[in-house]
Amino acid sequence: MVDRSKLHPYLTRPIEVKSGVAGIQRPANFLESIAENPEPLMEMANHHIVSARQFNLDRMTQVCRLAAEFEVMPHLIHKPLDGKIMINAFYEPSTRTRFSFESAWHRLGGDIITITDAGTTGMAKGESLPDIAEMFNNYGDAIVLRDSNEASVYNMLESLRIPMVNAGNGVDEHPTQALADIYTIFKWRPELTSLDLPENRRIRVGIIGTPGKMRTVRSLLLLLANVRHAIAELVVINPNREIFSAGQREELEAAGLNISIADRLKDVLPELDVVYINSIAWIGDTYETLTGDLKLSIESPLKDGAIILHPLARGDELDVSLDTTAHNWYFAQARGAVFIRMALLTTLVERISQVLDAPQPTAEEA
Amino acid sequence: MVDRSKLHPYLTRPIEVKSGVAGIQRPANFLESIAENPEPLMEMANHHIVSARQFNLDRMTQVCRLAAEFEVMPHLIHKPLDGKIMINAFYEPSTRTRFSFESAWHRLGGDIITITDAGTTGMAKGESLPDIAEMFNNYGDAIVLRDSNEASVYNMLESLRIPMVNAGNGVDEHPTQALADIYTIFKWRPELTSLDLPENRRIRVGIIGTPGKMRTVRSLLLLLANVRHAIAELVVINPNREIFSAGQREELEAAGLNISIADRLKDVLPELDVVYINSIAWIGDTYETLTGDLKLSIESPLKDGAIILHPLARGDELDVSLDTTAHNWYFAQARGAVFIRMALLTTLVERISQVLDAPQPTAEEA
Amino acid sequence: MVDRSKLHPYLTRPIEVKSGVAGIQRPANFLESIAENPEPLMEMANHHIVSARQFNLDRMTQVCRLAAEFEVMPHLIHKPLDGKIMINAFYEPSTRTRFSFESAWHRLGGDIITITDAGTTGMAKGESLPDIAEMFNNYGDAIVLRDSNEASVYNMLESLRIPMVNAGNGVDEHPTQALADIYTIFKWRPELTSLDLPENRRIRVGIIGTPGKMRTVRSLLLLLANVRHAIAELVVINPNREIFSAGQREELEAAGLNISIADRLKDVLPELDVVYINSIAWIGDTYETLTGDLKLSIESPLKDGAIILHPLARGDELDVSLDTTAHNWYFAQARGAVFIRMALLTTLVERISQVLDAPQPTAEEA
Repeated sequence: MVDRSKLHPYLTRPIEVKSGVAGIQRPANFLESIAENPEPLMEMANHHIVSARQFNLDRMTQVCRLAAEFEVMPHLIHKPLDGKIMINAFYEPSTRTRFSFESAWHRLGGDIITITDAGTTGMAKGESLPDIAEMFNNYGDAIVLRDSNEASVYNMLESLRIPMVNAGNGVDEHPTQALADIYTIFKWRPELTSLDLPENRRIRVGIIGTPGKMRTVRSLLLLLANVRHAIAELVVINPNREIFSAGQREELEAAGLNISIADRLKDVLPELDVVYINSIAWIGDTYETLTGDLKLSIESPLKDGAIILHPLARGDELDVSLDTTAHNWYFAQARGAVFIRMALLTTLVERISQVLDAPQPTAEEA
Repeated sequence: MVDRSKLHPYLTRPIEVKSGVAGIQRPANFLESIAENPEPLMEMANHHIVSARQFNLDRMTQVCRLAAEFEVMPHLIHKPLDGKIMINAFYEPSTRTRFSFESAWHRLGGDIITITDAGTTGMAKGESLPDIAEMFNNYGDAIVLRDSNEASVYNMLESLRIPMVNAGNGVDEHPTQALADIYTIFKWRPELTSLDLPENRRIRVGIIGTPGKMRTVRSLLLLLANVRHAIAELVVINPNREIFSAGQREELEAAGLNISIADRLKDVLPELDVVYINSIAWIGDTYETLTGDLKLSIESPLKDGAIILHPLARGDELDVSLDTTAHNWYFAQARGAVFIRMALLTTLVERISQVLDAPQPTAEEA
Repeated sequence: MVDRSKLHPYLTRPIEVKSGVAGIQRPANFLESIAENPEPLMEMANHHIVSARQFNLDRMTQVCRLAAEFEVMPHLIHKPLDGKIMINAFYEPSTRTRFSFESAWHRLGGDIITITDAGTTGMAKGESLPDIAEMFNNYGDAIVLRDSNEASVYNMLESLRIPMVNAGNGVDEHPTQALADIYTIFKWRPELTSLDLPENRRIRVGIIGTPGKMRTVRSLLLLLANVRHAIAELVVINPNREIFSAGQREELEAAGLNISIADRLKDVLPELDVVYINSIAWIGDTYETLTGDLKLSIESPLKDGAIILHPLARGDELDVSLDTTAHNWYFAQARGAVFIRMALLTTLVERISQVLDAPQPTAEEA
């Protein structure tokens, strides 16, 4: 008999689900508190999803509601995208976002073709973006595009005849990540979707980062403007001068957000209900890491009941000591992102009628 | 409310199918004009497809007919390749051809495993081709191979026990692309399949390029020899001296093609019914771009009703000004390539009986 | 008519299955000789498979029995892993092992997401292994991990909530390959599974290589210790001094293996029943090739009825002259590896009840 005492203890027992992963049981609560309304989803059928500007409160709420349905009842999904092909074109590589989309599509029963080596693609060889889009039309039923160039998604629009989802275009936008952030917030407090929210239930949201340069933050702020009735204050924590891009703050304030700026995290942290932190800001093709006191750990003066969001992967700015606390909603956020993408993808390719009680589309593309 | 006026207009309305994409409505006409005959397809079951020489007129016509069936009735495909695995071995990278094969296989219900990083494969490490073929036998039900070495496909034949499709072997052949070209021509004029074609209905075909060095052209010429009854003249437009490989022209002429050479495009263009243009010639591992006057644009003196074919991706030789004209059959050609591959792959893995009214194969490989 | 005499002869006839591939007909014999017992497989549900130490004789035998069932009756597999997603994380690239796992998972009806470019992953960017594991939890139902670092698999265990299969961790272990080796031996002589094996039926096993540095050999020796009742002698053929890692030989001898060392192959080859040869030993990130007389060819003094095993890909150490002899069990070994992985993967994700007559698991993970 070989020496079994040499076995790692985790190999001698079944895998246990860790407790303390906040928020995984919450989608059911959210689902119960929101009335089903297929209309806003039906409107999105056969549309591209490129910008967070395309979402109003109704669309956000119903996309999140459908995501919650998928999260609560994964065994009831009967492959609404069976026979459909997703093209995953990640010209800027990303394991996490790519896996999230691929997992979403596969869980819906669809197949996937993927660009795996951007260096050998037509784009690298100088093929025009409209021609590339024309090619994609022939091979799939939807396309997920990530490119480090902000303009690429827009340059494909004229030729595309299948719905495209923007999975990050340079420093511009990353709308599906922002929807996953919103979904997490809605699961935490379903009441925030209500325009009748009492004033004393409004929340303070802190954003640690540079909204002008971070695509996930840019998209998130546009979505938060749709929830302005629920946000007492939005604080951007950043010690630098150039925080917003041209016109960005003005537009958000015009849309009703009450925005303030703080230099130091410790000054505002005890008042924040939602703390959004991100390790990475795109600057051209390189990264800029947050510095100074912009770090969170179990020692940070977090408000009771406050939640932390982080799109991950993280660096030093988010200490693992927080992982086992109730402030950790970033793991739930990552999990929820798969269900948000399931909801969006189902919506785009006109198969809503298979998961909701909605009329059949009149014609379907091959 | 965020500023929706900043939204790109294409994001505010459903995706529209552009009109003017020539030929997409034609497969139905072709389908009606050809009698179904499963025999030539049955003969190809469990064969490799390596060379255009393997096709006679009957096989070409019936493969195209099955492709048209798939193109006309995509919703009726009930996954004839369900449970089958395709190995996609692209040692020479290619997004377009790979996607076309992957889309075809997935639309038939099959699964795919792909070589994504040729630099780390056994072939790169010096493993022999027969050994690699032996490995492939264990993992899939069909293999699609592209390699920049002409001999690779042939060196695998002895060990392979699953059907292989040659997706481009160096400068030698690319038979499935050539079949896609033929499919486009047949959709344009179904009558060309008929041996009783009146002499005054014969067509003039122009090939801009170097048949000796372009694998797609090499394969196409072999297929065109099977339609010699319908071709009044085949003109190769090329100002250089070495146009054909050794014995190539002689073989084609012996097979019945009436071949001539032209130095300048403008001399012959007004007489051509089909203009085949290609941007790229393989020379060793590098590309040679067509030069001189060998370019097409809306200014070119094209004959009324003439069609342009191009295997894409294109360079300057094919101007976008032609895209919205009735001469543009190259987009239909790219679209049709998926259906041709569906027809071929269904045929090879002995599942024809599931899509045509043909006898069951007596035994099926696992 | 083009010149069909130029066609390669293999293209003019259907693909033939070569005879002489030893062992492919044997799984039926093995299956008949072993009684079904789902208990050892049920115990493994929802466990990671990281080390060969996790297997006792019962588990080995029943995993091999289930593999034989898949090998004998591939047409009866009705997709027990339908809707399940495998994450294939090959941080150290490998076409052969990756394809074997992917083929196994697809044949069971599951979908796959794959890391295709290790250089752009979170791991390459410095993301922690527990965080990467946390990410994987959200995207799949099982993970297959290969990494050149021995510790990576262990560093993920605490965060993982889905079963992981170790597909090679540095020079440490490669348990699924070792199970494929054992499966080949059991198909060759099913009686070896029996504790009542007469002494004169015991076999001599030769291992050409460096057990201390070869992960496949390390795992295989741990499994062979479970079959000590059937092994008269285990000979390691290696002219060097440092053959074992610290404590390795002692542990195996304590477990009951009768181990000896030989400098030269020709001294012991005529007495060996099983000859295990491997071209490659991991030494840091580079390879060490076997040298000296450690080569096998048709000229080698192999015992009548002896079988050769090789995990492939091979180099000069295993001559192709042996391929058509009855000593060639290495092709059957490669083929069997797919079925072993099918058996293991089905077991881990708790779907044994769909392929064996076993009770339903009480709860299933989404």
